[in-house]
Amino acid sequence: MKIQMIVTTIAFTLVTLANPAYAQLPDPGMEIVPGRTALLITDPQNDFLSPKGVAWGVVGKSVTDNNTVANIDALFKAAKSNDMPVFVSPHYYFPTDHGWQFEGALEKLMHNIGMFDRKGALTTEDFGKSGADWLEQYKPYINDGVTVVSSPHKIYGPETNDLVLQLRKRGIDKVILGGMSANLCTESHMRELMEQGFEVAVVSDATAAAIVEEGNGYESALINFRFIANTVWTTDEAVEKINASK
Amino acid sequence: MKIQMIVTTIAFTLVTLANPAYAQLPDPGMEIVPGRTALLITDPQNDFLSPKGVAWGVVGKSVTDNNTVANIDALFKAAKSNDMPVFVSPHYYFPTDHGWQFEGALEKLMHNIGMFDRKGALTTEDFGKSGADWLEQYKPYINDGVTVVSSPHKIYGPETNDLVLQLRKRGIDKVILGGMSANLCTESHMRELMEQGFEVAVVSDATAAAIVEEGNGYESALINFRFIANTVWTTDEAVEKINASK
Amino acid sequence: MKIQMIVTTIAFTLVTLANPAYAQLPDPGMEIVPGRTALLITDPQNDFLSPKGVAWGVVGKSVTDNNTVANIDALFKAAKSNDMPVFVSPHYYFPTDHGWQFEGALEKLMHNIGMFDRKGALTTEDFGKSGADWLEQYKPYINDGVTVVSSPHKIYGPETNDLVLQLRKRGIDKVILGGMSANLCTESHMRELMEQGFEVAVVSDATAAAIVEEGNGYESALINFRFIANTVWTTDEAVEKINASK
Amino acid sequence: MKIQMIVTTIAFTLVTLANPAYAQLPDPGMEIVPGRTALLITDPQNDFLSPKGVAWGVVGKSVTDNNTVANIDALFKAAKSNDMPVFVSPHYYFPTDHGWQFEGALEKLMHNIGMFDRKGALTTEDFGKSGADWLEQYKPYINDGVTVVSSPHKIYGPETNDLVLQLRKRGIDKVILGGMSANLCTESHMRELMEQGFEVAVVSDATAAAIVEEGNGYESALINFRFIANTVWTTDEAVEKINASK
Repeated sequence: MKIQMIVTTIAFTLVTLANPAYAQLPDPGMEIVPGRTALLITDPQNDFLSPKGVAWGVVGKSVTDNNTVANIDALFKAAKSNDMPVFVSPHYYFPTDHGWQFEGALEKLMHNIGMFDRKGALTTEDFGKSGADWLEQYKPYINDGVTVVSSPHKIYGPETNDLVLQLRKRGIDKVILGGMSANLCTESHMRELMEQGFEVAVVSDATAAAIVEEGNGYESALINFRFIANTVWTTDEAVEKINASK
Repeated sequence: MKIQMIVTTIAFTLVTLANPAYAQLPDPGMEIVPGRTALLITDPQNDFLSPKGVAWGVVGKSVTDNNTVANIDALFKAAKSNDMPVFVSPHYYFPTDHGWQFEGALEKLMHNIGMFDRKGALTTEDFGKSGADWLEQYKPYINDGVTVVSSPHKIYGPETNDLVLQLRKRGIDKVILGGMSANLCTESHMRELMEQGFEVAVVSDATAAAIVEEGNGYESALINFRFIANTVWTTDEAVEKINASK
Repeated sequence: MKIQMIVTTIAFTLVTLANPAYAQLPDPGMEIVPGRTALLITDPQNDFLSPKGVAWGVVGKSVTDNNTVANIDALFKAAKSNDMPVFVSPHYYFPTDHGWQFEGALEKLMHNIGMFDRKGALTTEDFGKSGADWLEQYKPYINDGVTVVSSPHKIYGPETNDLVLQLRKRGIDKVILGGMSANLCTESHMRELMEQGFEVAVVSDATAAAIVEEGNGYESALINFRFIANTVWTTDEAVEKINASK
Repeated sequence: MKIQMIVTTIAFTLVTLANPAYAQLPDPGMEIVPGRTALLITDPQNDFLSPKGVAWGVVGKSVTDNNTVANIDALFKAAKSNDMPVFVSPHYYFPTDHGWQFEGALEKLMHNIGMFDRKGALTTEDFGKSGADWLEQYKPYINDGVTVVSSPHKIYGPETNDLVLQLRKRGIDKVILGGMSANLCTESHMRELMEQGFEVAVVSDATAAAIVEEGNGYESALINFRFIANTVWTTDEAVEKINASK
């Protein structure tokens, strides 16, 4: 029995050496097909991306290290220059949301610090330049009358908004995904879109995440992007592919 | 080496004191309420948990390190001893699933290695003791006529099966979650159940994940469990709480 | 009285014997449990309920015949008087929604007549007293700071908004359902909530529907309510049960 | 005021006369695009379609009147002859499903009469030629190794199975829909597929429904098909279009 195990271990080691893990984890890739491919940005809002945002204390380092603000901007610019449809999935909380009877850890934290708070769905009082508002430099892209802004998601994924329908109503089945934050809303959007039968290419440096004592959210996202997505690109690769796709 | 460790520890402590992030990540907890709380195990199948399974090469070390097989067994036993409802969400692929036109990385890998393959939904030919079958030692728990086995999930989450309905039809709104694999099906079940308004306590050592060159799936899962779930327990803690709950 | 009852019983028995189907369609009923039961109103908006609304031409007769406006008001009033949670699921279309590439029959019609149109999700310009706004007499109920207004649904059901999550986050698993219009949004909410494991009691005269040459939407809704829901009540019955539930 | 109302009424009547309701309810149509269009049949099972089925007493007349069995056969044949992908969404109940704590009217009825019952998901004991089995004459179409059979739906719609994913994984975004029963599973599939952004053409005589004292399910389905679907075809029209599409 023991010998069998040793043999198995040796065999496995040899296989591993001959056939490194990388070879075991394929990279299926994603071809950009005009008319079927969209850029999707999650939570391009001040609370994550502005030094004045309430989450900057935990995400600022990751946003800065990744050059996330400029990278998301480069994706917006490339998509708009090539008439690629652009979708934004925002994160808002309304006063009644503070009446939830139970919450996960980050939900509780977001509510505690007033993240993404708005005064109501039918008012824009105090909204402009608040933490829930778009990062100022993205407004020309988002407010051009063409970008589709979904209803807000309420936990992390698009299960609670109309994003999937909005993509489908325009024949989109391939999504280039960036935005905030990497292991929460971005990853939950990736996971749900794949459950819904979309192909997803995640742009690994057009996102960032909280780094806290419990762990580095960006590192965990990178691993899951690689395991799950159809492919993972850098912003440079994504921009190049978008420009070449038209 | 030792001095380096001490320095690291001191540095980390200083960072912790200076950086209140730790204080910011709450642990909301989850109270077990009999009649409303269930144990849910994802993928308790040979391909993940048996040394003969096709994924053992990449998950075996993590399964062994965590004592995952015995820990899942302990959860099953504790739940059954206390009449806590038990749900299992399996992973199967049928011949037609090999006709998918596109796949994410791990989907492609699973299909390449024939993971969770069955000959059809309406046949059990070659199923017994196959990689898709239950781990032998769990069969008394799963086949007792009381455990609810959902339809198979097809990517990683319960979006494609009837698990949520089955839980709801029994008044369950709190889930104790274990099973395989940590950053894929287990985490996707956690995420989707939370989007559906369940409370989820993840049992961090009743799961395990693939460790490959691209990353350690277990480490990424641990971070996301802590960020997202209502709470994270060890198997010992979960068993103690289940025993105390009746 | 007694003789009448006996005659009725005999008549009923004869009908049952002759046409056994009647006996086969049970009425499972729904018990109102405080804290777990909510009132849900779909589309309480001018375009359906005001004579100035764009759909009044096709729904006005049904709204008038059913006394729908007063009946919905009675439900709101009863729920508020008994501290029963109230939820509203509205219907809005934004300018980008007019870019959908394909639509079902009523979707196309709604877009053609500008039904539920708003100038944008982040503006209330021209919204007040528009077709998309609440019926004036319901505003005290909806705008009291307690009623939960979900994101807009975009076809007919709550698949595209956060209603299910909002209900679940407050422990609601039983819904008393009224609103507009009977065979479209109301019925799609009933169907989806039941797929999500809620119990649903539909209030058959707190709704109404379009009557057009192709058919009477209200009649078709009544049949489907009876076939599918957990139970069907009149407004009088619902109000009485709500008042008795506290 | 009164005069205004009279004028409005006269104007409306004139509009109605000049522009009949039919004109108000558009028929958007659906173009069959090879590779993107599939035939979907719900519940082609004995309990609905065989005189020996448990529901025949209430659906038999409608099935016979519509020539439903032959019409579904004609759709299968046309699709297979033209290499159009075919999907089947079945309805099964397992022993644990009888442990549901609450049910809608027809759910309760189905459980009471043992409709679609199987002995378990992992056994085919007593399954062959049971009420849950395929209608014998459809087996060559369904069991050809090409037809995709989804997991069972559990209420009426595909929310609880993998149908949507299976369609998407093959690039399908247009569905020709027939099967049983018209106002329950067929209509719920139509509604959910449209919420998911599919185009749906319903084949109005390749379905049928229960006729009970509470109402004629087929009539209600016809109205809702016309109001909601992208278009409604007869079997003859559908077959002609499928044959012309290749």
